Amino acid sequence: MKSPIQDYLLELHQRHASNKEGKVADYIPELFKANPDWFGICLATTDGHVYEVGDSGQAFTIQSISKPFVYGIALEDNGRENVLAKVGVEPTGDAFNSISLDPVTGQPANPMINAGAIATTSLVEGSTSQKKIHRILEIFSRYIGHDLTIDDAVYKSEAETGHRNRAISHLLRNFNIIPSDPEVGLDAYFRQCSINVTCRDLAMMAATLANNGVNPQTGKRAIMGEYVGNVLGVMASCGMYDYAGAWIYRVGLPAKSGVGGGIVAVLPGQLGIGIFSPPLDALGNSVRGIKVCEDLSRDLHLHMLRVPNASSSVIRRTFNSNTVASNRLRPHWETLLLHHEGHTIQVIELQGELVFSSMEKVVREVHRCSPQAYIIILNFRHVQSLNDTCSDLLLKLWQTFADEDRKFVMAELDHLPKVARHFRQRLSAELHSRVRFSDDLDSAMEWAENQVLAKHGRIKAELQNISAKDFVLCHGFTPEEIAEIEALLKQRNHVVGEEVLRAGDPSTELFFLKRGKVSVIIENDEGKRHRVVTYSPGMAFGEVAFLDRSPRSATVHADTDVECGVLDVAHFDELTAANSPVAIKLLRNIAIEFSHTLRRNNRALRLYSR
Amino acid sequence: MKSPIQDYLLELHQRHASNKEGKVADYIPELFKANPDWFGICLATTDGHVYEVGDSGQAFTIQSISKPFVYGIALEDNGRENVLAKVGVEPTGDAFNSISLDPVTGQPANPMINAGAIATTSLVEGSTSQKKIHRILEIFSRYIGHDLTIDDAVYKSEAETGHRNRAISHLLRNFNIIPSDPEVGLDAYFRQCSINVTCRDLAMMAATLANNGVNPQTGKRAIMGEYVGNVLGVMASCGMYDYAGAWIYRVGLPAKSGVGGGIVAVLPGQLGIGIFSPPLDALGNSVRGIKVCEDLSRDLHLHMLRVPNASSSVIRRTFNSNTVASNRLRPHWETLLLHHEGHTIQVIELQGELVFSSMEKVVREVHRCSPQAYIIILNFRHVQSLNDTCSDLLLKLWQTFADEDRKFVMAELDHLPKVARHFRQRLSAELHSRVRFSDDLDSAMEWAENQVLAKHGRIKAELQNISAKDFVLCHGFTPEEIAEIEALLKQRNHVVGEEVLRAGDPSTELFFLKRGKVSVIIENDEGKRHRVVTYSPGMAFGEVAFLDRSPRSATVHADTDVECGVLDVAHFDELTAANSPVAIKLLRNIAIEFSHTLRRNNRALRLYSR
Repeated sequence: MKSPIQDYLLELHQRHASNKEGKVADYIPELFKANPDWFGICLATTDGHVYEVGDSGQAFTIQSISKPFVYGIALEDNGRENVLAKVGVEPTGDAFNSISLDPVTGQPANPMINAGAIATTSLVEGSTSQKKIHRILEIFSRYIGHDLTIDDAVYKSEAETGHRNRAISHLLRNFNIIPSDPEVGLDAYFRQCSINVTCRDLAMMAATLANNGVNPQTGKRAIMGEYVGNVLGVMASCGMYDYAGAWIYRVGLPAKSGVGGGIVAVLPGQLGIGIFSPPLDALGNSVRGIKVCEDLSRDLHLHMLRVPNASSSVIRRTFNSNTVASNRLRPHWETLLLHHEGHTIQVIELQGELVFSSMEKVVREVHRCSPQAYIIILNFRHVQSLNDTCSDLLLKLWQTFADEDRKFVMAELDHLPKVARHFRQRLSAELHSRVRFSDDLDSAMEWAENQVLAKHGRIKAELQNISAKDFVLCHGFTPEEIAEIEALLKQRNHVVGEEVLRAGDPSTELFFLKRGKVSVIIENDEGKRHRVVTYSPGMAFGEVAFLDRSPRSATVHADTDVECGVLDVAHFDELTAANSPVAIKLLRNIAIEFSHTLRRNNRALRLYSR
Repeated sequence: MKSPIQDYLLELHQRHASNKEGKVADYIPELFKANPDWFGICLATTDGHVYEVGDSGQAFTIQSISKPFVYGIALEDNGRENVLAKVGVEPTGDAFNSISLDPVTGQPANPMINAGAIATTSLVEGSTSQKKIHRILEIFSRYIGHDLTIDDAVYKSEAETGHRNRAISHLLRNFNIIPSDPEVGLDAYFRQCSINVTCRDLAMMAATLANNGVNPQTGKRAIMGEYVGNVLGVMASCGMYDYAGAWIYRVGLPAKSGVGGGIVAVLPGQLGIGIFSPPLDALGNSVRGIKVCEDLSRDLHLHMLRVPNASSSVIRRTFNSNTVASNRLRPHWETLLLHHEGHTIQVIELQGELVFSSMEKVVREVHRCSPQAYIIILNFRHVQSLNDTCSDLLLKLWQTFADEDRKFVMAELDHLPKVARHFRQRLSAELHSRVRFSDDLDSAMEWAENQVLAKHGRIKAELQNISAKDFVLCHGFTPEEIAEIEALLKQRNHVVGEEVLRAGDPSTELFFLKRGKVSVIIENDEGKRHRVVTYSPGMAFGEVAFLDRSPRSATVHADTDVECGVLDVAHFDELTAANSPVAIKLLRNIAIEFSHTLRRNNRALRLYSR
């Protein structure tokens, strides 16, 4: 399928393929073997889709692009302050191989120059070069999603000719920035620079950073979220050697280049870019790579400081239980009471990746609820993530209602088990009784309705034993007609858990529920059980038997021990054939019940279809 | 109402109020009058909500915080390249009053140092100082939402003692960076620095930048969106005088401080921050202001490079017309055909602020549609904005289907008139016939259904004239029963536009639609008319007359000239009293129709309630 995005990238590739400026790196023979015409562009989205054009599968050595990623490992292995004590974060305006050590402390200016990078690699866990590079390879393959190799020829050549880097590392040893054998970190550094990657790999590394540290294809975390901003920060301010200001200004994407011809660039929260083209400019950046970054930023409006509003869609919808009720059908008096009290149950459905600014909007939405809203249900079904700030805000929000008799339900949080655990652990004893977790919105709403009914002294309708005159379908019957229908009903009991009727069976009976609860349960495509409706005593189910007589469309389960009165279709047909008023009244009452259900559904549909 | 966010800010204010470090600026007496205890913090969201604690209403002079905003005006007045030719964008690491001119070109390093700022103000439109400051005040009040004043004492004092700045501006004249009288820009610069603001004002200025240049309270644009990234870019790389790298690393918020004690900071797409506390550190930044920025960033996880996924929620839902159909009820044969062809009409509902990365996901979603999807409807109801990249991608997407017989509908785009115009203007003649715009999804779906029916040679069901035997409610009637009901029907005709029945009227009649179309129309809370249902010939409406006889719940309009057969409830009651099989069959058919509608609604509800 032709994609306009693929088309655009092809056009972009063509636009710059003819640019023959720049020179392939020649300080070691292995790099100079690169074909100056090699040129690949790759885009990876935060949900793992990859676009690639040109030589996107051509392997080359990662070189300095390894630096920010190894910096992330050093942060994880040592903590932020310990790393900052050894390596600064200020741009130098100097070339990549400048020494740029603080004259007093010996601290390298930042982790993107060689001095800072060697110090950083020395900070990676592992007492030997082998252990360090093992850790680096393991983390890099988490970023990329497959195992990686090292180009031994490049490594050996770099190690043999890297006199300047050796000098730097001994200077770092001199200043005690590297407190032990400087050769260990240096050797690991030479190896890390010699890791083979493709520009597709680079795009995945970038997309992993864009996706807050989680590889979007494998779902594996490559770096803790709290360090993502720091890694991208040093890329933004020090990534492109010189001209940090111009890069942020013109391109606005944290980026890093390597003398192998690669460039990695990240649009946080949006996408990762990998480019490969060996000819370099005087600063050591890929000539075509820079042009492609500039064009991508301009053509597609990609800029880290010009981003969409993070909170515009956080509230998916809000409603109270007058608009949408639980799927539990209730006796008339309960329905009336709940309708009257509908404003006391408020539902707020959230969506997206929640951060401070979106949760702030949620807090306001909760405050906007009527003071009579006794139960507030937050539905997390469409929430993909929730940072700690959000959890804290929610906990504090509940505490602000501590002096009120308000309850909160967190619905459909099961896909975020860590968040749910975090909440549960931090609930105070007092909040424990006031905050409830519920696997689905429907049961959350039923629970809320039960709370409201209990508040008004109405409980456990299902325990009542109903006689025929109380049946909804017998409304308007004379005592004789009641007696007539009662005589036709066969008593049938089920214990909790039994199937009362089964999908696919022929429809030959109408059930009057006298005691207990039954539910229609279906499984959705993902195998999740979903309650369509629960009936209470006084209601009938299986009416289709008296209408078009198609087979049972769903299975009905006994939620409790139940007692039913069963009317056989043969008896109904006899009533009809005799043109009995009982038949007419039954049909009219069935139609009236349907019309009520339709009216209720239409309210919900009008809300939902928005 | 106690808010956890307000509580947090109060706690933050307390945390730093006792910090007595720093010195109030004293280079002019007017600034030294400031009370060192003044301390205000303000947060403004991208939807215009403001949190404020402390001395948030205390006026002070904006000083250097004016620089990035005036830079934005210079960009608008001269274009990006003309401004870049005069003023660079590289951080200097030098103090705010450093001269930092390029030794060859005389170009100031960036617009945040005084030299760059004076050059920038000289670039603002206006031949006199008065004209320039008038323009600056006008734009600043767009950022803030109210008119602004200048502190004349501060202005005069700055103008009298600003020898260094006068020297700088003459140097700029010497290098021809300022090509005319240097006193004009210099005087406007002194005035711009003396504009009175509060930290609440600063928060609104920041929120306007965070909101892509539009003041979130007034809805007025203060700066063109395309320059927002540049203004924030110079704030990010050069805003905090020294330590650009550390600022991005530790705080990660583009920011600018002024010697009046103000700091403005922006989290793009999320929020604006204004802080005011006069005591300054050695670099000229508010001591408490810096601490508050650091704490806000850490405590609330605010970092421009760690942002939520921009595309995770772009697809609100997708469905085909088997799940949800238009509100037009169609004759049985049409319904069957549409059901069979349901997969040929695909609806994709979008939401949020669309940028490249979200539109890329939409493009993939369209590609994922079945090849049989003949009509694709994109619903924009929940889309707040759409940048040019998105429009271009959509146009190109349609073109990729040029060789296919596919049609596209853009539904509910009326709240984005500029976008709609942009699309219409750029449609090629060929696309014109294949892309349709529709004000609401329901009519888009009806149009799509009509297209599918037309493709199969089924059109204009409403033109057919239906006799009683074809009525849905007469299904299963014997010829005698048909004759019996026909004898009872009164013919009633309406011309297009007439009310057939009216909400609130008593329900005394059942209508059999013989020819034409009628619709139930309601107005929603916003006064927008909404079609509940449209009936086709052969259908009945007003059944409630035969059920619980509550008053008409909605008004029914004739969409075309219509012919109805009307059954009076009195006649129906006679049939019932006589226990006529006609009554039983009518009631049963009403119930069956209801059960079909319920089944259809349940499909839609299951989709929508997700």
